Amino acid sequence: MSVATKEILDLNRFDATRTDGFPPELAERVAKRQAAFGASSVLFYEQPIEMVRASGAYMYDAGGRKYLDVYNNVPSVGHCHPRVVEAVARQIGELNIHTRYLNRVVETYTEKLLSRFPRSLSNVVLTCTGSESNDLAMRIARIATGAEGFIVTEAAYHGNTALVTEISPSSLRKRKPAPFVAIIPAPAARDGMSVEASFAASVEQAIAELKSGGIGLAALIIDTIFSSDGIYADPAGFLKGATDVVHRAGGLLIADEVQPGFGRTGGGMWGFERHGVTPDIVTMGKPMGNGFPMGGVVTRPEFLKRFCEETGYFNTFGGNPVAAAAGHAVLQVIEDEGLVERSATVGGYFKRSLEALQGTHSEIGEVRGAGLFIGLDFIDPATGEPDTALATHAINQLKHNGILIGAAGKYGATLKIRPPLCFSQEDAELFTGTLDTILNAR
Amino acid sequence: MSVATKEILDLNRFDATRTDGFPPELAERVAKRQAAFGASSVLFYEQPIEMVRASGAYMYDAGGRKYLDVYNNVPSVGHCHPRVVEAVARQIGELNIHTRYLNRVVETYTEKLLSRFPRSLSNVVLTCTGSESNDLAMRIARIATGAEGFIVTEAAYHGNTALVTEISPSSLRKRKPAPFVAIIPAPAARDGMSVEASFAASVEQAIAELKSGGIGLAALIIDTIFSSDGIYADPAGFLKGATDVVHRAGGLLIADEVQPGFGRTGGGMWGFERHGVTPDIVTMGKPMGNGFPMGGVVTRPEFLKRFCEETGYFNTFGGNPVAAAAGHAVLQVIEDEGLVERSATVGGYFKRSLEALQGTHSEIGEVRGAGLFIGLDFIDPATGEPDTALATHAINQLKHNGILIGAAGKYGATLKIRPPLCFSQEDAELFTGTLDTILNAR
Repeated sequence: MSVATKEILDLNRFDATRTDGFPPELAERVAKRQAAFGASSVLFYEQPIEMVRASGAYMYDAGGRKYLDVYNNVPSVGHCHPRVVEAVARQIGELNIHTRYLNRVVETYTEKLLSRFPRSLSNVVLTCTGSESNDLAMRIARIATGAEGFIVTEAAYHGNTALVTEISPSSLRKRKPAPFVAIIPAPAARDGMSVEASFAASVEQAIAELKSGGIGLAALIIDTIFSSDGIYADPAGFLKGATDVVHRAGGLLIADEVQPGFGRTGGGMWGFERHGVTPDIVTMGKPMGNGFPMGGVVTRPEFLKRFCEETGYFNTFGGNPVAAAAGHAVLQVIEDEGLVERSATVGGYFKRSLEALQGTHSEIGEVRGAGLFIGLDFIDPATGEPDTALATHAINQLKHNGILIGAAGKYGATLKIRPPLCFSQEDAELFTGTLDTILNAR
Repeated sequence: MSVATKEILDLNRFDATRTDGFPPELAERVAKRQAAFGASSVLFYEQPIEMVRASGAYMYDAGGRKYLDVYNNVPSVGHCHPRVVEAVARQIGELNIHTRYLNRVVETYTEKLLSRFPRSLSNVVLTCTGSESNDLAMRIARIATGAEGFIVTEAAYHGNTALVTEISPSSLRKRKPAPFVAIIPAPAARDGMSVEASFAASVEQAIAELKSGGIGLAALIIDTIFSSDGIYADPAGFLKGATDVVHRAGGLLIADEVQPGFGRTGGGMWGFERHGVTPDIVTMGKPMGNGFPMGGVVTRPEFLKRFCEETGYFNTFGGNPVAAAAGHAVLQVIEDEGLVERSATVGGYFKRSLEALQGTHSEIGEVRGAGLFIGLDFIDPATGEPDTALATHAINQLKHNGILIGAAGKYGATLKIRPPLCFSQEDAELFTGTLDTILNAR
């Protein structure tokens, strides 16, 4: 798997050794950028794009070219949404400080945020990133259960800290995951079993594996729409079986809502709602502040209490009034613009259009998803095998046609369709029509 | 030590069980806040303050009361500095996106930032917090050296991720640090040795300890002004001996500049400059964006390259154009307002005033520091022992007199004086005069 996941990371990645045909100014800019960021520099596309502004579902490059954004899920309520911009601009001019003083903006936000969760999940810790959130969630789970082990899916990505990288198989390039991590396949109907039964069976087996290595189960941690694995959403409810297995084994369910959360799946505010399960810990990040760096962990008070008895935890920037103002504006916009419903409606239409396209293009395999998070597999029609090269071709051709998109999945052969939630039916038609033309022109 | 450090954490911490005498509205607010944040809630003072706005070195509570801020080092160029506010407000309305597209704001900032470092440290990774920076720095050091061990000072705090908590003895409440961590005392002249010789000897001994446990040295990680240990700044240059010892043993020096960086010590942009040493990795956080959540790791290209070969690393919010705009404004303000020089001048005056106060108050022990980062020990004049109760008394009395301050050090008996860098000589006089009155009135 490490080879496959390395390929995903490198897919659609700019290769710094190939700047021959670039305009001189671009070549110089890229060289400067590589000099500063070094080996950690990641730029998209064979010829990187210089972006200068963005609005709604559209981005604009330095040459004034307009791109339809079908990739970016962080500016979730729309790039530079005026209400979020205004909330941040106002609050940062008034007060921007840690949470050791009382502040009404922070209290109002946390109250509103927690009102969107099941009653049992009544405590929140505000952090700055999804990575910090998952790092903290893992430690809370370990202290709550007294066990060390985690179960994750095989192409999962949960963040970038040392601990979270261990449960992010897609980040490990040269080595295997740590012994406390058990890997399971992405959810699918297998061996005559339903998706639910098969996923539950995988979890059961992973628990046994951990146990045979002398490791107890702390938690099953899942991105509730399995983004990095290639987007697995259906049938709604399939997480129930695995959740029961985890709870019977004394473990916790951590729902990583960094990608599916804040309305994206169209089935409620959170991905776990579509499945009718109640997690023990929920983590948030990316869309929480529409790009303002913020994250959070929501859990049961007794788990947080036990954690705090072991370890002091304070997050300097976490929950500052500017983050709270941004987060509050995001929740307001989701409500006022009906973005959960919009995600369901436009996403449903989009998915049906892609399924229709599948009828005329046998190189399109499965189309999976919920709301405005859709995965589209490219396959070799003869063998049914994943076609990574076609995904790369499509991504670059879409760029040439002014559309931004990326790939996911174990083989990087799945288009990862997750535009800002203000995406319209016309935007969906533009994407589908353009993809149709690209596939016809091959 | 765990008892002492737990005391520091609890010192000046609001006790949620004691709201009896509070005005009803405050009691209700506090109860709501505790309900949402649960056991992780930390509020300052016996009766918490509700803050509503801040400007320069002053903060204002909901009743309109003005406080001189001698505590907060995050809004380092001054609370709500108009140039930082304007930079964030403008950029967040234009574009706020990850670094996988080229963007001039990001390039200009990284170039300017790197120009403030020694030539060998030419690569930067932008993160969101000091914790993320130290987490990454530790992993880079481990891969660069092939060794696992870290040396830290006994009351150090380097951040809140799982890995960084292991090298933050002040966060561990119930257990000892992990076996890969060797603890050394804060720097001081001991056993007839100079500060430099004694600190180098401690490091030498720690390396031997690690080695006897079969653990090699990855790095000595130090906050270059030893904030949590109680502020140890002098004599400038004392880090040289320890740095040589570390390098001879094949380890790296990680300079945690989250607190001393960005001009605070008055001896240059970075705390390590006062000591004439060149670290292998430098980490940044808190003041980097004057409160906008951002951090960074600066290191040698070859170290970053080796790290990236092992592990994919990407930070979604790290280095976005809004962070870059905030960071750039901070660097500009530091230059244009001469804040490094101001920190040296005002800080020098402040320190001399506190030393003068020491002449009339035998309960003031050592006054240590550099620039606008000063530690003032309270002691029992009879025994010379740390007087934690007096520190608590002073902190609360200063609050009653409209001055915000906190404590540090192994016993929490050291006033931690680190105001925004726009602090004036008159502000210093107000602090010194008020402290004089408080000590006289005992």
